[in-house]
Amino acid sequence: MSLKDLAPANVRAIAPYVPGKPIAETARELGLEESAILKMASNENPLGSSPKAVAAIRGALDDLAYYPDGAGYELKGVISRVFGVKPGNLVLGNGSNDVLELTARAFLTRDDSAIYSRHGFMVYPLAIQAIGAKAIEVPTQGYETDLAAVLAAIRPDTKMVFVANPNNPTGTFTPWQELRDFISRVPPNVLVVVDEAYGEYLPPELASPAVSWVEQYPNVVLSRTLSKAYGLAGLRVGYGVANPEVADVMNRVRQPFNVNHLALVAAAAALEDHDFIAKSRANNSAGLTQLEAGFKRLGLEFIPSRANFITVRVGDAAKVYQRLLAKGVIVRPIAGYGMPDHLRVTVGLPEHNARFLEALEQALKG
Amino acid sequence: MSLKDLAPANVRAIAPYVPGKPIAETARELGLEESAILKMASNENPLGSSPKAVAAIRGALDDLAYYPDGAGYELKGVISRVFGVKPGNLVLGNGSNDVLELTARAFLTRDDSAIYSRHGFMVYPLAIQAIGAKAIEVPTQGYETDLAAVLAAIRPDTKMVFVANPNNPTGTFTPWQELRDFISRVPPNVLVVVDEAYGEYLPPELASPAVSWVEQYPNVVLSRTLSKAYGLAGLRVGYGVANPEVADVMNRVRQPFNVNHLALVAAAAALEDHDFIAKSRANNSAGLTQLEAGFKRLGLEFIPSRANFITVRVGDAAKVYQRLLAKGVIVRPIAGYGMPDHLRVTVGLPEHNARFLEALEQALKG
Repeated sequence: MSLKDLAPANVRAIAPYVPGKPIAETARELGLEESAILKMASNENPLGSSPKAVAAIRGALDDLAYYPDGAGYELKGVISRVFGVKPGNLVLGNGSNDVLELTARAFLTRDDSAIYSRHGFMVYPLAIQAIGAKAIEVPTQGYETDLAAVLAAIRPDTKMVFVANPNNPTGTFTPWQELRDFISRVPPNVLVVVDEAYGEYLPPELASPAVSWVEQYPNVVLSRTLSKAYGLAGLRVGYGVANPEVADVMNRVRQPFNVNHLALVAAAAALEDHDFIAKSRANNSAGLTQLEAGFKRLGLEFIPSRANFITVRVGDAAKVYQRLLAKGVIVRPIAGYGMPDHLRVTVGLPEHNARFLEALEQALKG
Repeated sequence: MSLKDLAPANVRAIAPYVPGKPIAETARELGLEESAILKMASNENPLGSSPKAVAAIRGALDDLAYYPDGAGYELKGVISRVFGVKPGNLVLGNGSNDVLELTARAFLTRDDSAIYSRHGFMVYPLAIQAIGAKAIEVPTQGYETDLAAVLAAIRPDTKMVFVANPNNPTGTFTPWQELRDFISRVPPNVLVVVDEAYGEYLPPELASPAVSWVEQYPNVVLSRTLSKAYGLAGLRVGYGVANPEVADVMNRVRQPFNVNHLALVAAAAALEDHDFIAKSRANNSAGLTQLEAGFKRLGLEFIPSRANFITVRVGDAAKVYQRLLAKGVIVRPIAGYGMPDHLRVTVGLPEHNARFLEALEQALKG
């Protein structure tokens, strides 16, 4: 008997998440300096991190021998104040990846099913599979989340539905009113996990109203991250907003010190750095326009995006990806998301977008 | 129906881990400055953090917008070099708490049982319960782990045994040869998780040989942390050493970015800061002697310790704990570990130990 066989079949069958290729790894493989590599693969903020967050970290380096505050008193206070929720609504996560996993680990068993949309974030099926619950993938309409189909897929054993808005890796956006209508039709004993990882990139007139839904629909769980617009991917911090009963159960399976001290301190500072978010949004909006214009010039189809990335049809994406990589430009192949003809590229600074478009033009020529 | 009832019974019944009371919380409650509070409650390093680790963090603050290297290439390289293992033997964790949970989540199902010793670390039963597996607690001999009783408790459905050496919260030490004999008797299809969180505090002649066991006994999983002797509790980083097949399965349920960038960078530096470990060990050894002498003077029984804390019998520990707290000294009540007459105190600097002993003397007088 192999030791691996001690693990249940659902765990043995997990194909681990494949992240964007790291700069250091790419530099090693190409024999280049890290500074020569342009990574547009993981929807990271090209402006860097909130300066207020970095300053807060510098002020906290004497405290690292102490455990973090597992209750997250300070950070929960800031989130409560900024978004008008109560600390009892909150679950802090080691990135929103942790928040998503906590929903699964708190509520799902192998007797349950959970639903997600095709062309949706890989972590949903992974979190479901790790439990041994049944994962139900619902087809999209084009590349748009098909909420009617999601609703129709709910079965008596369904305990959870994952919906992202905007969606990754497609960048598509569902009008909030449609999402709200959907939630009002979901049975109250089915949790709806709304992943808002890219919410800060929406223009103010499309800003998420979902926090206000949590009181009216106690089965709604919001998942948010500091990894994108706040520029803190390296620190791993996110949060869930939920009914206090739901948050309480999630906190029971949460590791007591899941968010580290520097992440707690940085997140508390970043959440009030409204200036940095405004700059990030402005750079992103201009970058989307620049990339769309470039794709049009190259005659490439793309999926209009509301996030900090855009997904473009390039034909044999694996080949184009490798050619871009050889030029030191890392983007994201998304064959694993059922999109073998597309590449997903993160919006960069203007000069990044220009370098990528030039490299792409060359890569397409072969 | 309450939404809480959607969660399975084993999750609803979890009583979350109660950490040492944080300094900030204590200062708020007592109306004192944080600097007036002495925390000796969470086995944190009174010397602070490895200076090499803090320097490494300062050099990494420009990279926080990027995701961490989920594969932990650099840190695994350092661990491999320092301890003579291969990167394929390693599982990085968000603290060793994460490593312990990953063993449970990778291997246990609700059809299995797992064993731990009474007066052992609370995270073992919590990790087992979160899965819904059967947790079997084995009595100790006095306060010592009773390996013969653990062996006798193994049932056909047992998949995992947790053993700590030195043990927390008792500080007791099992000679390595006894542990090895035990492991050689455990059926090869039962994983033995050896928690070495306090291993660095052992004198050189008692240093753990367990890394060399992993090849001979593929069912052995070592769990180690940077939170104690390395002084990095606030950063959350630990690692597991296991057979490559076991490590592979654990990595499948690991969150892709479970260890944050600053924790990776700091751990890689700290693991080669042998000077800091030597200083930590020397301070600890002297502090244990100082505390033991104080307890003897006060006529208090204590459990001889090989770790960075010592557990002392004070009678009504809840009352003494509160009296110490009122004097700004936080120690750890361990009634939840079945020891309502004892307090666990972390070894501090000489002046910390003296302040604690003085406060204790007053607290005992009432």
